[in-house]
Amino acid sequence: MHIAAVIGHLKKRKAQKKIMDNKVEYITRLFQRTSSKAIENYCLTRLWHKLDNDEIKIIPQQYVGRHTDKYALTDIYLPQFKLHIEVNEPAHYVSNDRILADEMRKKEIEKNTGHKLLVIDCRPDLKEIHKQIDDIVTEINNQVTIQKKNGTFKPWQPDIESNPNHWKNIGTIKTSDEIWFRNIEDICKLFDADFNKTKRGFQRRGGIFHPNSNTHLLWWPSEKTRSGWLNTLSQDEREIIETHSDSNTKATHYNNHLNSPQKRIVFFHHKDLLGLTSYKFKGVFAYDSSKSSPSIGTVWKMVENELKINLDE
Amino acid sequence: MHIAAVIGHLKKRKAQKKIMDNKVEYITRLFQRTSSKAIENYCLTRLWHKLDNDEIKIIPQQYVGRHTDKYALTDIYLPQFKLHIEVNEPAHYVSNDRILADEMRKKEIEKNTGHKLLVIDCRPDLKEIHKQIDDIVTEINNQVTIQKKNGTFKPWQPDIESNPNHWKNIGTIKTSDEIWFRNIEDICKLFDADFNKTKRGFQRRGGIFHPNSNTHLLWWPSEKTRSGWLNTLSQDEREIIETHSDSNTKATHYNNHLNSPQKRIVFFHHKDLLGLTSYKFKGVFAYDSSKSSPSIGTVWKMVENELKINLDE
Repeated sequence: MHIAAVIGHLKKRKAQKKIMDNKVEYITRLFQRTSSKAIENYCLTRLWHKLDNDEIKIIPQQYVGRHTDKYALTDIYLPQFKLHIEVNEPAHYVSNDRILADEMRKKEIEKNTGHKLLVIDCRPDLKEIHKQIDDIVTEINNQVTIQKKNGTFKPWQPDIESNPNHWKNIGTIKTSDEIWFRNIEDICKLFDADFNKTKRGFQRRGGIFHPNSNTHLLWWPSEKTRSGWLNTLSQDEREIIETHSDSNTKATHYNNHLNSPQKRIVFFHHKDLLGLTSYKFKGVFAYDSSKSSPSIGTVWKMVENELKINLDE
Repeated sequence: MHIAAVIGHLKKRKAQKKIMDNKVEYITRLFQRTSSKAIENYCLTRLWHKLDNDEIKIIPQQYVGRHTDKYALTDIYLPQFKLHIEVNEPAHYVSNDRILADEMRKKEIEKNTGHKLLVIDCRPDLKEIHKQIDDIVTEINNQVTIQKKNGTFKPWQPDIESNPNHWKNIGTIKTSDEIWFRNIEDICKLFDADFNKTKRGFQRRGGIFHPNSNTHLLWWPSEKTRSGWLNTLSQDEREIIETHSDSNTKATHYNNHLNSPQKRIVFFHHKDLLGLTSYKFKGVFAYDSSKSSPSIGTVWKMVENELKINLDE
């Protein structure tokens, strides 16, 4: 092989290897994360190993809205198939009230999301628990076959989710694509923004303007308090409250942003359910005049769940 | 169906169900127990789910002797195939010294036990880790086929392991059969001993004599301190030191048992690796005059690893 070809081959191998390492990290942490619930952990590990397909993504504890003020976390979610799975321990069946409540919950979730929710009943013995999981595996495999035939199957590729060059080529980012970056430098890469502008002496700015706009801010609020600043993302991820522990700073900030025309492109810095820290794309947010107040702080509400990277209409 | 047949059928179903429940409890706890080591847990769950055979028993952290004063705990042990599996995280390969030490360890374990030890190397990506496990699965499945053909396959049956009537019918108990009981009543059942004799007012005796013998004691020492009594089982399970926190009681007990002719049939009361408490058969122990002393206490050494239940020669 020519030396350039060899290097190309090695780079490709390294890149492939990298994808796998992300997957090993993700899935082993996922198993660990659910280990406090023995039977849920058992069902999850069986689902993964029997599917035996590392192109399928599994998410634990997916948020779903039920109605105005209620929400649910489903045990297991497979975003490629819009499929939720609940692992019901025997305690779920102790009373008729509990059984009815679970059924209502299932109907609400399916109605509000348009997703499907399947339940694994853990009262029976090992063989019957296995059968229920194997039936779900068959159903998912059928869907994979159909999606591949239709050309709609999107394989799980964590390296692509977090690769700014990939999304730059696509040109559009959507919250449903589960895009996340390891650091602020990668956010800047995506928008061709100047990474140096994010620095302020030894400190880091909370955001910088999009290179093509004076109103669109690339914003990376953190769930952690930083120099007194505190940003809270609501459970349904449609609202961020920006506030400060010092009441003067808070008031000044509120007044500075009163009726702000800013559009904020949000990459929320957080530790996810698996303990991995990242900046995840949450959509475009705008000032919420109905909720912001000097006492609450500045409130931003989600207005777009997708965005053209160069801001073209 | 005749009413008696229906009841018989239901009883049988219940018994079958019971076996399963034990298995669900055991295997889900096994997964939980290993969850602190993410990659080991991943390999273990894959091994179990890919084998997909609930007649195969898996034991974590099996003790194996290396030489006089050294021992090892292997990560996974499959007693039906005398097969140990080590899951080696990348740290095992950081230096040549470490690699050589691991190789020596493997050779020693295989030589001392006559068992086989396989290693899963967790440096490569997910696909290659999977391949290694799948090869082990194939090897085990081959052995199952061979053992079934030869009529030597002993399916994992936790309900039988702990059923005194089963072992009474067999007539002989061996440490290699992994026999354990849930309570002292079941130990008495096995030997047709009078359970009432185990009671001393509101207290429980530490042991009672075998109904056919004045020298054979059915003994259930506990790893927990009880009214000052402390029994320590050595790592290789061939020695028990019996002592007391009060020096007078200790000395009296030592003198009472000096050169004792007793044979002690030991059911060690302990919480196992999975957190399940039981009385496990550890063999027949006799007084060890070379090790017992007023300061150490009374030492019992293992002299037989099997026993005819009625003590016939």
